Amino acid sequence: MNKKFKNQINIGLIGFGTIGSGVAKFLMERRSLLLKRTGIGFNLSLVCDKDLSSKRDANIPKKMLTRDFNRVINDPDIHIVVELVGGIHPAKEIVMKALSKGKHVVTANKLLLAAEGGAIFQKAKDSNREIYFEASVGGGIPIIKAIREGMVGNRFSGIFGILNGTSNYILSSMSSQGSSFKAALKEAQSKGYAEKDPSLDIKGLDSSHKLAILSLLAFGKKVDINNIFVEGIEDISNLDIQYAKELGYVVKLLAIAKRYGNELEVRVHPTLLPSEYLLSSVSGVYNAIFIDADLVGKQLFYGQGAGKLPTASAVLSDIVDIGHKIACGKNSAKSVIPENTEIRKFRKMDDVVTRYYAHFSAIDKPGVLANIADLLGRHNISIASVVQKERREAHIVPIVMLTHEAKESDMQAALRKINKLPAIKKKSVVIRLEK
Amino acid sequence: MNKKFKNQINIGLIGFGTIGSGVAKFLMERRSLLLKRTGIGFNLSLVCDKDLSSKRDANIPKKMLTRDFNRVINDPDIHIVVELVGGIHPAKEIVMKALSKGKHVVTANKLLLAAEGGAIFQKAKDSNREIYFEASVGGGIPIIKAIREGMVGNRFSGIFGILNGTSNYILSSMSSQGSSFKAALKEAQSKGYAEKDPSLDIKGLDSSHKLAILSLLAFGKKVDINNIFVEGIEDISNLDIQYAKELGYVVKLLAIAKRYGNELEVRVHPTLLPSEYLLSSVSGVYNAIFIDADLVGKQLFYGQGAGKLPTASAVLSDIVDIGHKIACGKNSAKSVIPENTEIRKFRKMDDVVTRYYAHFSAIDKPGVLANIADLLGRHNISIASVVQKERREAHIVPIVMLTHEAKESDMQAALRKINKLPAIKKKSVVIRLEK
Repeated sequence: MNKKFKNQINIGLIGFGTIGSGVAKFLMERRSLLLKRTGIGFNLSLVCDKDLSSKRDANIPKKMLTRDFNRVINDPDIHIVVELVGGIHPAKEIVMKALSKGKHVVTANKLLLAAEGGAIFQKAKDSNREIYFEASVGGGIPIIKAIREGMVGNRFSGIFGILNGTSNYILSSMSSQGSSFKAALKEAQSKGYAEKDPSLDIKGLDSSHKLAILSLLAFGKKVDINNIFVEGIEDISNLDIQYAKELGYVVKLLAIAKRYGNELEVRVHPTLLPSEYLLSSVSGVYNAIFIDADLVGKQLFYGQGAGKLPTASAVLSDIVDIGHKIACGKNSAKSVIPENTEIRKFRKMDDVVTRYYAHFSAIDKPGVLANIADLLGRHNISIASVVQKERREAHIVPIVMLTHEAKESDMQAALRKINKLPAIKKKSVVIRLEK
Repeated sequence: MNKKFKNQINIGLIGFGTIGSGVAKFLMERRSLLLKRTGIGFNLSLVCDKDLSSKRDANIPKKMLTRDFNRVINDPDIHIVVELVGGIHPAKEIVMKALSKGKHVVTANKLLLAAEGGAIFQKAKDSNREIYFEASVGGGIPIIKAIREGMVGNRFSGIFGILNGTSNYILSSMSSQGSSFKAALKEAQSKGYAEKDPSLDIKGLDSSHKLAILSLLAFGKKVDINNIFVEGIEDISNLDIQYAKELGYVVKLLAIAKRYGNELEVRVHPTLLPSEYLLSSVSGVYNAIFIDADLVGKQLFYGQGAGKLPTASAVLSDIVDIGHKIACGKNSAKSVIPENTEIRKFRKMDDVVTRYYAHFSAIDKPGVLANIADLLGRHNISIASVVQKERREAHIVPIVMLTHEAKESDMQAALRKINKLPAIKKKSVVIRLEK
């Protein structure tokens, strides 16, 4: 970046897979549209991938292709490096080197930012360069821009997000078609909505990475992803989805961050939501983020959370934003998120207070419900409603209840005792509930 | 603005009513938060209003108050003028003069922009100054930023918005409480959600002003507000809301802009929406904007569409954005929206093709339904479903139907004939339907 800026921004793209080819295609196809809308010429100048032989959607002249990412990073004419390699290595090395070499960086890499954001944001600050990452959360939904710029004057109190399209697709089909988790996962895989190894998605890890990014932006607090309480959807049965429905609730994999004064609570788990909530109507592969902030009040942002086109949209938006800054002639350090020193600690999962849906499988004999209710009561858990369902299996009666607010540690202690009751024949199911 | 920028932005506020006092209050209270988040000091330096005696929420020192807006506009130390006067005059003069004097402008004035946007944007361009207006549509929802920046690489095909909280509140209470339009309006007025003279809101005009602004941003086409087809909610009866509900639909006042190749269709009217749609779940004073664009696909933005705090949030966001530009040292002309020369004409309402809900009030005698169906058929309107309801009044039978897609001119022609049938005892009700 030693050359004088002449209203032309040169872009180097590293990672030429599905997402990368989408970005390349639209950078070229929309050149004149972007020029008209911004007054800046955006040029794709170099594209890097290990594999240059596979066929892609975007036609890139041979001389613009390279297998060596250092060629991109070291090119003095390139202003912005777009990292779409994914994973931590070598993505981290690419981003760090690019920043050191004075390049601005755009990335869609949520894992990288969630795991290594500390070092990367520091490097961006030290290098006086921007790192933008709109595509890392919520696909094409401009949620990062909304939090960081659109609500810049707000103090945030809560984030509730459906941040993983794969899990939402599975839970939606289980709910609408009555299918089992396994069948719904298989269907999602056959449609290309779930990967062959779906662990990151269905175990809630992908959601936790995205939540770490949103929490950093909204609350100014770095979250160690290893310390986020995460429960996936693999143990959700269709039976519980149907019981929840009868009670007026929908089961969603929710990523939750809430601030209470100087404490922050961050967790990801299947959650019962009242069916009339807007978030409850978000089905299929769609994502939605519900924000609670003191000036704007409650807001919801909804859209496709992944995919080639939405991701390309977000990357283009980042490129344009950086382009405007380069055009300005100064490098500001807007992407450096100020730490919020008011937030002093993370609430331990044991101390979280929430409502619960519980489903106990008991032998059909007198006194069982009384036993359960008694154990819950001894642990300060009061029951809001209870439904004893008709027998489904020989001698086993499902007892379904909703509790009032209770402390997680109390609930877990009560559960351990309930599960040891001779009348309880299966591990009890507990799903948290948000109002 | 002759002084050198020293990381301090001075703001002059014109219009110190409810909204203005909110902006003043939070500009002062959030000074250190904004400094931390942006590195820029934002100073409220002068506040102007005709009335300086009423009590406000914000404590402004006397020497910072003035009755003369020229003092604000002519103050060489002021960088940004915030216009919160409302209406066209003298708001237009304030904005035009401020731009001429080299001030950047932030406004929440949708009427001004919808009616006089042409001249104002031209003046901003000529003066090389910014005009920002996030608060003019959707209150605190960063919808303008989302369209203009977050989706900068997209081509838009549709906007469907619940843009008026007052009307949405009235329709929501009619639907949930079974109240009449009059009763619901009265309730809205008593809660402060509707003005004493609610015409602008309930007649759809406010929505049409906001739609003109969104259309300009998304489609790059100036819309003459006098040419927007606008129908309000004052004739919606509770009966029709209930019939629609039985058929699986919700009635919303929708602002619609759709692009078909080189044609743009822009209209505001009560609309039946399938109840399972996300937009249908938006109730009370909330606003929501549903966007259809080619890269992001379908997105929805939801939040409070008005009020002191959400408006203050949007104004602060605009001030910060302009602040970053001033800090850059250059004035870009990002707010100047490039005209989209591909769009050559507006579709006439007569040529709009849509589905319809129709409610005919006929005398209970044989052959009436056949007469109506015949007249519709002769005008190329085919019936999708029909429900003949039980008699409600002596001898009058309500016949409710949904049509397939039909041309507006055909529907109007058929209606004129149907309304003249001797068996038809009341003016027929027709509400358009969106899928």
